[in-house]
Order: sequence, then C-alpha cells, then structure tokens
Amino acid sequence: MSTLEAHPSTSTAVAPSRPTGSSAPLHPLGLDAVTVGAGFWAARQGNNGDHAIPSGRDQLERAGNLANLRIAAGQAEGDAVGPIFADSDIYKWLEAVAWEYRRRPDPRLLEMQREVTALIAAAQEEDGYLDSVMQIRHRAEGRYFNLPWSHEHYCAGHLIQAAVAQIRCTGDRQLLDVAVRVADHLVATFGEDRRHDVDGHPVIEMALVELYRETGIRAYLELARYFVEARGHGLMESYGKASSYFSDRVPVHEADTVEGHAVRAVYLAAGATDLATELGDPELLAAVERQFAHRWSTKTYLTGGLGSRWEGEAFGDPYELPSDRAYAETCAAIGGIQWAWRLLLATGKVQYADALERMLFNGFLAGVSLAGTEYFYVNALQVRVGAHADEPRSPRSGRHGWFDCACCPPNVMRTLSSLAGYLATSDDRGLQLHQYTTATIDTESLSVQMTTDYPWDGTVRLTVTAAGPDPRTLSLRLPAWADGATLTVDGQSRPAPAGDYMTVERTWSVGEVVELALPMEVRMTYADPRVDAIRGSVAVQRGPLVYAVEEVDQAAGVSLDEARLVPDGTTSVEHRADLLDGVSVIHLTGRTAPAPASGWPYPDQPTGEPTFSTDDGLPLVAIPYYAWANRALGAMRVWLPA
Amino acid sequence: MSTLEAHPSTSTAVAPSRPTGSSAPLHPLGLDAVTVGAGFWAARQGNNGDHAIPSGRDQLERAGNLANLRIAAGQAEGDAVGPIFADSDIYKWLEAVAWEYRRRPDPRLLEMQREVTALIAAAQEEDGYLDSVMQIRHRAEGRYFNLPWSHEHYCAGHLIQAAVAQIRCTGDRQLLDVAVRVADHLVATFGEDRRHDVDGHPVIEMALVELYRETGIRAYLELARYFVEARGHGLMESYGKASSYFSDRVPVHEADTVEGHAVRAVYLAAGATDLATELGDPELLAAVERQFAHRWSTKTYLTGGLGSRWEGEAFGDPYELPSDRAYAETCAAIGGIQWAWRLLLATGKVQYADALERMLFNGFLAGVSLAGTEYFYVNALQVRVGAHADEPRSPRSGRHGWFDCACCPPNVMRTLSSLAGYLATSDDRGLQLHQYTTATIDTESLSVQMTTDYPWDGTVRLTVTAAGPDPRTLSLRLPAWADGATLTVDGQSRPAPAGDYMTVERTWSVGEVVELALPMEVRMTYADPRVDAIRGSVAVQRGPLVYAVEEVDQAAGVSLDEARLVPDGTTSVEHRADLLDGVSVIHLTGRTAPAPASGWPYPDQPTGEPTFSTDDGLPLVAIPYYAWANRALGAMRVWLPA
Repeated sequence: MSTLEAHPSTSTAVAPSRPTGSSAPLHPLGLDAVTVGAGFWAARQGNNGDHAIPSGRDQLERAGNLANLRIAAGQAEGDAVGPIFADSDIYKWLEAVAWEYRRRPDPRLLEMQREVTALIAAAQEEDGYLDSVMQIRHRAEGRYFNLPWSHEHYCAGHLIQAAVAQIRCTGDRQLLDVAVRVADHLVATFGEDRRHDVDGHPVIEMALVELYRETGIRAYLELARYFVEARGHGLMESYGKASSYFSDRVPVHEADTVEGHAVRAVYLAAGATDLATELGDPELLAAVERQFAHRWSTKTYLTGGLGSRWEGEAFGDPYELPSDRAYAETCAAIGGIQWAWRLLLATGKVQYADALERMLFNGFLAGVSLAGTEYFYVNALQVRVGAHADEPRSPRSGRHGWFDCACCPPNVMRTLSSLAGYLATSDDRGLQLHQYTTATIDTESLSVQMTTDYPWDGTVRLTVTAAGPDPRTLSLRLPAWADGATLTVDGQSRPAPAGDYMTVERTWSVGEVVELALPMEVRMTYADPRVDAIRGSVAVQRGPLVYAVEEVDQAAGVSLDEARLVPDGTTSVEHRADLLDGVSVIHLTGRTAPAPASGWPYPDQPTGEPTFSTDDGLPLVAIPYYAWANRALGAMRVWLPA
Repeated sequence: MSTLEAHPSTSTAVAPSRPTGSSAPLHPLGLDAVTVGAGFWAARQGNNGDHAIPSGRDQLERAGNLANLRIAAGQAEGDAVGPIFADSDIYKWLEAVAWEYRRRPDPRLLEMQREVTALIAAAQEEDGYLDSVMQIRHRAEGRYFNLPWSHEHYCAGHLIQAAVAQIRCTGDRQLLDVAVRVADHLVATFGEDRRHDVDGHPVIEMALVELYRETGIRAYLELARYFVEARGHGLMESYGKASSYFSDRVPVHEADTVEGHAVRAVYLAAGATDLATELGDPELLAAVERQFAHRWSTKTYLTGGLGSRWEGEAFGDPYELPSDRAYAETCAAIGGIQWAWRLLLATGKVQYADALERMLFNGFLAGVSLAGTEYFYVNALQVRVGAHADEPRSPRSGRHGWFDCACCPPNVMRTLSSLAGYLATSDDRGLQLHQYTTATIDTESLSVQMTTDYPWDGTVRLTVTAAGPDPRTLSLRLPAWADGATLTVDGQSRPAPAGDYMTVERTWSVGEVVELALPMEVRMTYADPRVDAIRGSVAVQRGPLVYAVEEVDQAAGVSLDEARLVPDGTTSVEHRADLLDGVSVIHLTGRTAPAPASGWPYPDQPTGEPTFSTDDGLPLVAIPYYAWANRALGAMRVWLPA
C-alpha cells in the first residue's frame, strides 16, 4: 500500500480515518489546502524556518544528541550525553523540518532530513528497538528496565510522529520504515498478555493512532488503546512520585480532571481523544471533554497556559494559579493545543477553537522570542520587582537558545511550521474557519482567500477564489469575547453572536466577499474570586491577545510594585510598527500607590492599601504578553492591582 | 580540663564564652536556671517527653537509622537504608534525649542515651571519621567524594550538637569524646591549605563554635570560620543546583538577604552569628542582622514561617509568599528560632525576641500535633477546597508520624525539650524575660516565679523568690503588637511601650510582685500590598497567636470558597477547655459570597466580586493556627478575603 495514495491530502499531524472508522465530524485540511500568507503568523513562521530550524540542527550537534545516535550506530565511540530522552529532541526537530519543507520546499531541508534520517536508521537495532541513550548508557540494565522514567516509548512516539510528518510532507518513507519497525517491536513486546508496563511519559498513544491512520495496521491502534487503558491502575506506584504525577491514579475513562505532570497529562488526554475518535467510543470522548472542561475552568491561566507548579512541573489544585510562580511550560501549552485541536475535530464545538486561539496567541507564543531562536521553558505571568534569576528556567533570566532539558525549543519549531493545519477544517457540507490570519484555503468544492490584519485589526475579509456548482457552507468562528461582532454578506451586515459559529450557506461564485468585523475594544478582565493569587487585580485584553505591563515601557521612576490600574480610566490603542516587530500597544490609566516602608509586612492596623497619591493620571503602557522579555529584562505583570 | 567545671551553668545549646572572647551582651540561662511550670508549653513538653521521644526511638529503629550504625560498627550486615543523612536524625533525637533528661531526669532516658551512644562510638572509624551511610553505601567512592550533597559535615554537626547537649545536661562525656575525634578529623582534613571543600548543608558551623565553647579548643572555631568564609565563592557551582541554593552565591559578610534552600540558609546564618559573637566581628554581625531584617520584612509568613517554594525547599523572591503553596518547612522555622536566639544574645534587641515568639507559637508549633507524635514537614497557610493529598508532605494529607526524609520530627523534639532555654537571659545588671509562660527562673542575684495563662490571658505575674543585696534590673519584653500594655509595680500601673523592653531596677525583696498586663484584643491584620498572594485579605491575631479558620468548625454548608470576613464586624473570644487541649476560639462575623458558576474563570465584564448574599451575619469560628489539622482534614485559611 502506498500511503501517499491512501491519503492524498493529509499533510497534517492529525488525520482521522475516513470514511470508515472515525466519528470525527470535522476533517483537517492540512498544509496541502491551507497556505499562510503575509501577516502575523507568517512572520513567526518565517523566523522559525529561516533561523530556528537551522539553528536547531546546530544545537542538536552541540548538545550531543546527534553524537548519541552516531555512537549507537557504531559510527563513533563515547558515552551518551544529555538526558535520557535526548533522542526525542531530534525527532521533534525532524518533524519540524518536514512541515517546513511542505510550507517552503527548500532542498536544504530535505538534505538535513535525509542525513539525520539515515543516522537514525543506522542506529536502529535488528529487532526494531531504538533508543540511543539507552543503547549506550544502560545496555547493562537492559531495555525497559525502568520504563516509568526511561522515556523509551516517549522517544518512540516522537519518532513515529516525525515519520508520519515526513511521509505526508515530503514523500520520503525511510523514517516511516524505521517507525514501523519500532512500532512492530512495541506490538510484539507490550500488552495485556505480553509485558504489562507503560512509559511514564505519554506521547506514544497519539503517535500509534496516527501510525495506524497512516498505515491502516490495526495493531498500532490496539496498542495505543492498551497504553491508554493500562493507566490509572497504579502501575507506577513505586517509582518515586505519586501516581497522580504520571496520570496513573484514575483510569482515563473515569477521570474528571487532569492532574500531575502537566505535559504528561495533556499528551495522554490528546492521545485518548485520538483513540476515542478512531474507536468511536462516546464514553471516552465524554471523559476527555469533561477533563478538558475542568482543566479550562479551574486549572488554566488567562493565557491558556497550564500547570501551575514548578514542583513536578504539575497541575495544582483547582484555582491554584499563582502569577509569579506560574510554571505554564511551553510544552504544556503545545500539548494543550494538540488536545484542543483533537477535541475540535471530534466534536466541532466552538469552545475548543476558542481555547486554541487563546493558547496559540498567548500561552504558546510567549514561549519563543520574536527572533524565533530563544525560548522560555516557564511562562510566568508576573516577574517581581527584585526577582532573582537563579536558574535558566527562571523567567527573570529571559529566553534561552537551548536548555539542558531541551523539550520546548523543537516543540515550538514543529508547532509553528505546522500552524497552517490549525486554521480551517471541512465537513460534508462545507468549510469552517477557526483561526484568522491572511491565508489561502483550497478545497475541492470551495476555495477562499482570507485577508486580515488580525490580531491588530478585527476585520477579516474572505473572497471566494473557486467554487463548485453545489451549495456549500462557510462557517466562521465568533470568539466568546467578540460581543458585538458583525458579518457582512452581499453588502448587508448582521449581528454575529459571540461564542458560536456563524454559517452562510449558498452556491458560491468566484469573487464573492464575506466580511467579518470583530470588536477590538480594550477589555478589562476580572477573575473568579477562587483564584486567590490575583484577587483585586485586573488584566487587559484586546481581541485574542492578553496584554502585559513591562517595566521597560513605563515612565522613569514608575515601579510595578506601586502601579495600580484604574479599570474605568481612559484607554487608547496605538499601533507601533517600530516596536517589537509591530504591535498595538495599549495606553492605560493608572495611579501610584507608594509602597509602605519596609519592615514587618503585616500591620495590625486596618490601614489596608496605602492611600493613593494625587497623580491620578499615571500613564501605563501595555504590550501583548507574547512579546514581553524581548528587550531589557525587568518586572512584568499581566494582572495589575486595581 | 573538665568541661563541666569550665562552664558550671551552661545546660543550653548556645553558650557564648565569657568573660573573654565574646561580644554577646546577654547570657543564656539554660535549663539549670529556668524551669517551665504547668501551662501552655509544659503541656507540649510533656507530650514531647512522654510520647514523642520514646516513639522517636522506635521510629529510628523501624526506619533503619540505627541498623545503619550497627552495620557500620560491624555488629550486623546489610545495605544502608534511608537518605544519605540518616545519621543526623539519630543525633537530633539524642540531643532531645539529653535536654529531656535535664528537664526530667528519668533513668530510662539515660539508658537510651548510653545504648545509642555506645553504638555511635562503635561505628566511628580509627581516625575519627563517622558517617554510617557513607561507610556502607559509598565506601567505593570514598569519603567526601560528593560533599555538596553527601551531608557528611551536616551529620557531624548534629553529632557535635548532641554531644554538647549530653555533657551539659547529663554529664556523660562518651559522645563528646566521639565528637572531639570527629572534629579533630575535620580539622586535619579541611581548610584553606588542606582540602578546600564545604558541605552543601550547613550546621557544622554552629556545632564547631559550640564545641569550641565547650572545650576551649580554638581550632574548632577556626574551622567554623573557614566553613563560613569559604561559602559565597561558587565552590558548589557544578553540583546540579544554582549556587544560591547552597547559599554559595554571595559571601556571608557581603550578603544582604537569605536565599536558596531555606534550612541551609538559616542554619548558615545562625552559625555565622555564633562566629561573629565569638570573634567579636562587628561586620559579620552587621551582615547577619541585615540579612535577618530583609528576610523578616520580605520573606516571612505571618506565622514566622520561612521558605515559600516547594521547588528546592527555598526562599522565593521578596514578597513571594503564597498561602496555599507555602513550604514553610518545620525545620526552617526551627532554624529561624536558632538564628533569632543567637541574634538576641548578640545584640539584646527586642525584635529578635518578638520574632522568636512569633515563630515558636505559630510557624514552629503548627509543625507538631497536639499529641506530640505527628508532624508537618510543610506548613501551608491555606488548604483549598478540593485540594488533593498527592504526597505525605502535602498539608491536605495531615500530619505524619515520620517521613522518608525525617529531619523535622527529631528537630521538633530537641526544640521542645530545650525550650526553657529560650525564655530568659541575664547580663551584668540583671534579668531579662523574653517569653512568657509559667516558670521559675533562678539566678545568683535574683530569682522569680513567673505565673501566667499566656497566651490565653495577657496577665503575667512575677514574684521575687530570692534576691541578693545589690540593685538588679528586671526587664520585660513588650511585644510589638502589645499597644496599651501596662506594668504594675508596687501596686502602681504605668503604660508599657510596645516593641521594647521595660526595665525596673531596684534592690529586690522576696515576695515583691511585678505584674504585666498585655492587651489581648482580637487584631485584624493586613498585608503589605507587595505580598500579592493575599491582596484584599485579612488575618486574625490575638496575643502572640495567629488564627486560622478551619472547615470543621464552621456551620454545615459553609464553604471556605465563599466565606468572606467582615473586618469591622463583631468578634468575641471564648475559651474552650474542651477543645484542642484547651484553646481560646474567636467568633468572627462573615458574609457569604456565592462562588460564580464554573466555566471560564476570567470574565471580561467588570463584575468584580460577586454580590454578597443577605446573610450579613455568617458566623465564622477561628482557632489558633498551631492547632489546625488535629481533627477532620479539610479546607483551612489564615488569610480570609475581606
């Protein structure tokens, strides 16, 4: 079976089977059908492709990841370096290379891809096993001697994902052959009646489902089902962490929330969503929807970021969402995006597309510098006055080009290069637009050109560029924040309700225009009082963007310790093409509340907040949160005391 | 030299040399001179002596600490068990045994002491080296192969402290002989011109200074100086943690704050204070005073607890003091007490005695159950509704009898059994009373009986029981919170200023009475607005006690998610002899603010807090913070939204 023939248009990471076997109502369009044009995301994709991906190659060389493969392949000698999951960084980068090639077919990408793929193939053992660090460092202990911590399946999962991206985007099948041999080895080794064991770090679940979709080999889907169902029975109880850390406390079908290590939890949930889709399992789908709803309402930052604890890189208790010690790992946001995307495909519900937008523009995008080559591991919503940069992950230390644990950088790369895949879907009736950026979208029965200055401007113009003879729907997402939006069709405007899709159905003609106007007022945002950490504070949003007040933009002498926001004060928006690669800044009205003298900080007298000084008109300048920490490092706040 | 003769009255952990070599203005009285009588602390000491210390012996057996010693002594075979610092738990417990014997000379204590001491002596190597886990588990790697993590000096330090307590309290000198051999080995091994290395976990500094005080051997003081001065030069830079974690970023003489691992930092600071005292080094004393002031004003919880981060058990940035994720390790409070006590002796300044009181009654005492035998490692100031007990240190899981890392339990034991030593001091002019509890205090020139129901009642009655012919001062501490206190002498009351000592000087006669009346009004306490985590919240205090609202005391159906405190509402105090071994509860006035419906928790509409329901008179009941988690486990709050 030629996989390329089987799925002629699936250059996307998630390709639910059709027409049989899948319950997914929406079909991804992938990079064949969607091309991002000049605009907000294209600029990020350009830096990612021009600078980040080539520099990733160098980083993988410098950090020793590629050397590990050479040693495992017998092409070099030495000890393995780096963390146990070092191979996975290579695979995520390789996946990014494949998406990037589909986006912009530069032969240098293919050259890098083939060189590294050959190395991977050379390192694979006879029976399909492949994990260079294990092969070198832990040969004595043997394969899978410590699976909850060894990340062997985690590495295999990222390998499979890269292989699937490679065949879908470049037609090269060498990595897929490696991946199939890895997967066959796993099928032969693990399962209820074989070795009963799971990797402590999910990702293999998503990967195996996709490999099933790509190859049609049912055993991969069944193994994914086994890995999902094996969890929640305390298999990892004696591995040094609570079973909740590994998402191993409650079976996925029964869980009401996500808990423990955030990336592990959301990767597992995304894999379970894939499984529910392929198996047509309504109970499992209901479980992951329930878990998503609980995470979204009680364990999510305004930015869409997730995982509030440094300790264990974990979800906290409900409403435990400190701004200063937010962990909100970049990889967790990416996992959140992957999960929400799968839920959107599986259900067609608008809230998942809304969540995607929030995570993409804020919790995810803050994880990479404007230049595209420096990364945050941790995405705090506040950096204190006097904060100390005590380690590379500390937000006070700024973004870095790479980390000892370098999971985030190549994860950002693969997300940015495949971003076109998250914009639109189709179903039997027509086309759905979930995210707004300038792009061309081509399907058999309807093609449109989307033109917009979003997120700076709320106007989204859609021009039909090709249409078939039958009536087709065109559905546009109205974000939940978009009260007062209008949709103009045939020159007639009508109100478009927020938090829903608005659908126009007709037989389309080339040149027809539909225009969406999203309200771009500055919004003052409050918090559920159960989020204790931000009581009495207000955040500023505009469109899909969360804003932040950064020390460097304020007038000399203004301390973020003393600034207060006047929520009903005047605000104005100014687009600054010269600033931070072009951003709309928001001018806000504040006050100064002089900090009390230092000393015992808990006075008995009910003085409360210090009295305000007379300068009612302290100007404050806010920038989009994603753009912070691209200049001088200093204090920063998303939530401002009101 | 017979050490007992050299220091005839030093049954205390800290005995600055005199008359020469010390700049300390206040002299500790120790357990020879101060006896705690029936009352608040005597009840805690009773449970500690009757139950905790004997059960500690069993726990050390069960956890394998004693077995390690037997293996090292060649009396048994096997592998070492437990953490690398397992010996230190034995030494802290042994120190508690010595203080307890001085408090109440039960021959069974002496028996336990001698048995375990003999075992320790048997495990010691020829040249004085002693660390059973290292001797068994790491013989191949060799001594000190990984000193920043091996805790070899940490164990030696606790051994020395136990030995000093033993000779001072029981006259037994076998452990002192072991300790001197350990110390001589250290002197021969470490120093600027010998091995240049320090233990990652301080305590050896305090211990060596005290061993110098006990033995007069100057080399121990010099080695302590070396260990203090070697820090702050990045010696531990490549040991997997930031140098700030080990207090190794800035030299102690230059540091303006404490940072990193909280217990390490305050143990080091306490040792540096000892050193400053013995060396008469005003710059070093100024440095540790500066550091204490910064920690007290920016890195301290209302309870006196310290160390806000789970990650690294560390101090956070200034004002980073979350209630829910407060770490506030019990051992850190104990280190804080040891540091404050040394600063008090060195300076005579009232703020250190105030700090001691706050830490003793709140941050420290919450670490042990009323029964005396269960412990908190972590002392949160809030347990959320819906909090999950994911590990033994989680406050939601309640107190435990022991921990895998059992540093806290024996640390509590030695602190409670030696508590009498923290109450009073003398100087050349007379007697200073720093803490109030029923006790007899006997010095050569003045003896008093202190009688009080403190902290439930503010009246402290002092009756002279013996007096010499010369005029002597009697100084009483007026806590900073005690606005409106009065002192009655000769039947005449006069105002006593808060936050100072009030001194009466005269030639005293037996039977004379001085009576202090401290104001015991309920106090509503606010926070510096820089402590973001508790913005808009109020805490309740009375006397030295911080109060907490615990779910179990509230009316059925009252959720701590929805309760609000009305700070100017009526309050009343009720002493409940039947509750929690006798506590004064505070009845407060609250309101119910129904939590919003679940969903996206960040609404754009400026609704702010939900409107209050009409039940203005929601009664709330607060108990002393130290007594929480002694009944049903549930939600708890020190800071209540106002």
